[in-house]
Amino acid sequence: MRIKMDKKTKTLKTLFIGFGNVGQQVARILTRERNSFPGLAPLDLKVVGIIGRSKGSLVNEKNGVDLQKALQEVEELGTFSPSNPDVTSITGIEAARTLDYDVLVELSTLSIEKQGEPAISHIRTALERGSHAITANKGPVAFAFKELTILAENKGSAFLYETTVMDGAPVFNMARCSLKGCTVKGIDGILNSTTNYILTRMEEGQDLESAVKEAQEIGVAEADPIHDLEGWDPSAKISVLANALMGASITPFDVERKGINGLSIDDVKKAADSGKRLKLICRAWREEEEVKASVKVEEIPAGHHYNSVTGGGAVIRIETDLMGPVLITQEDPSLYDTAYGVLSDLMTLTCGY
Amino acid sequence: MRIKMDKKTKTLKTLFIGFGNVGQQVARILTRERNSFPGLAPLDLKVVGIIGRSKGSLVNEKNGVDLQKALQEVEELGTFSPSNPDVTSITGIEAARTLDYDVLVELSTLSIEKQGEPAISHIRTALERGSHAITANKGPVAFAFKELTILAENKGSAFLYETTVMDGAPVFNMARCSLKGCTVKGIDGILNSTTNYILTRMEEGQDLESAVKEAQEIGVAEADPIHDLEGWDPSAKISVLANALMGASITPFDVERKGINGLSIDDVKKAADSGKRLKLICRAWREEEEVKASVKVEEIPAGHHYNSVTGGGAVIRIETDLMGPVLITQEDPSLYDTAYGVLSDLMTLTCGY
Repeated sequence: MRIKMDKKTKTLKTLFIGFGNVGQQVARILTRERNSFPGLAPLDLKVVGIIGRSKGSLVNEKNGVDLQKALQEVEELGTFSPSNPDVTSITGIEAARTLDYDVLVELSTLSIEKQGEPAISHIRTALERGSHAITANKGPVAFAFKELTILAENKGSAFLYETTVMDGAPVFNMARCSLKGCTVKGIDGILNSTTNYILTRMEEGQDLESAVKEAQEIGVAEADPIHDLEGWDPSAKISVLANALMGASITPFDVERKGINGLSIDDVKKAADSGKRLKLICRAWREEEEVKASVKVEEIPAGHHYNSVTGGGAVIRIETDLMGPVLITQEDPSLYDTAYGVLSDLMTLTCGY
Repeated sequence: MRIKMDKKTKTLKTLFIGFGNVGQQVARILTRERNSFPGLAPLDLKVVGIIGRSKGSLVNEKNGVDLQKALQEVEELGTFSPSNPDVTSITGIEAARTLDYDVLVELSTLSIEKQGEPAISHIRTALERGSHAITANKGPVAFAFKELTILAENKGSAFLYETTVMDGAPVFNMARCSLKGCTVKGIDGILNSTTNYILTRMEEGQDLESAVKEAQEIGVAEADPIHDLEGWDPSAKISVLANALMGASITPFDVERKGINGLSIDDVKKAADSGKRLKLICRAWREEEEVKASVKVEEIPAGHHYNSVTGGGAVIRIETDLMGPVLITQEDPSLYDTAYGVLSDLMTLTCGY
């Protein structure tokens, strides 16, 4: 899919839906820290709206919202200030339907229970209107991949989702640009930093409950970590990978899934005694015409690359018909990496593929 | 740099210089094994010439050379058959200057002594004439990177070199497409399968000389392995990486280089006793305005990712300003991987970036 881009820098009228950690980090990099990242110079965003959930919303189609002011208000008050002249009451879907924007950036949190909504509707609306869409929320690509990519293709719009798996580490960009001509036969990997961190701590002697608590204290696990512990987050990710790289049409509900809940220190010790480590491994493979996927704890032998992926790291291994397996590893991702994934998609829109 | 491509499949008039292992594997995949690789369907090459060294040359601008026949002759006779109607006497530079081609594919062997010639002259000639150039030979990108990339840019031609480092594993494609906006701060890696294989065998008790001999027997080391043992091959690769990813202008002669010659089993044992492994590590880093590079044996601690890269594997680790370190690892490359690197560049020309 080719996007017609002018050669010179293009101002992107941008609508943000969601302004949590990722959105704020994107804003931080684009404003306060801009000078530290000269590579981002081509980016020129006119933020026509920021639709928060509990934070309120800001809209200014004429001049653009003051992104630095918006960030400061949320950092200091936890919401947009009622005295901000751009404050308004509008939902995500209303904004998606009525505002004038080149790209909708969906930064809200994945809801497995709502099967990716309302993010899917936001994205669908943007694409139907001929705008581009970027998502950090895995919902649209885990639950509606085929529909949204076909819609984008038909409209000549871009639908980008780099940060949905392994943050900004190049997975989808890479597959699009660098695996031309290859057919992906299988994918496996460690794709959930929360559980990887917890398993690492359990090897060091902590039981599951205290490891979870510690992960929450340092911000590696959510207040309600069930998406991670039950394997829903990695199931969403392996669905995205299977759909985008293997032509599958699966959702997290199709994944053979068993998380780390119920794992004990004894399980971990027993593996260690035979020189192995327990890792939560995601897999996707072909079975005749179908693509299957699983998420479960596996014993990884000593010397295997996966054993050097500790703490919050992540790895994906791709098997193709034309090359020996290629792995991409993230060593120590932070919020910068997640923000960079969104920024790299904005760069793609600005500079072309 | 954007290449204007028509949307429909484009027949590429192709001139191959060199027809050794890589060239033959490319030919094998494009002819005999074509049906096994459906992803390569868009590729449509009209081979206007194949310029061998000892094998002779074939030229047929009108109808294209019969690639499958050429491959068979070399496999059976070691040269092109004197009775092949396309056999002719022509040098690489003559072919580059006079034949009509869209892309010159340089597959000859790197010569450190000749500082990348005659490959550099072949590539320069192609680009000056407005054709594209693909190289598997590291010489042009290790010794003349800036000149050739600027020339290509001025002419609106593509100069591609994916297979020069880590075969087809996406390094340069990735940097071009997937690290937009990032500034690369440093690179390190294991980039020479020959020495990595030898070091692995030395850990298993072989001395250097017999490990080299074994590597030669199984085709992992050249008849004259000095480029590998003295660290010239990895120096060429780290130069390419520094030039392409960090804006440097260094050549292999600028690299602080010490290979594995002189290493003993005792050195290997001593490292193992303290839980470490010896690896030949390539590094590039910034020192103020300059980019420096080194190739030398280093002790790698247990648990480090590099310790899981054994045998013929390779790895590159990239540090940027916007992301935590990202690693790309090749697990078990074969000649398919090297051929794929060339094919992926041909796919880029055919399908666009």
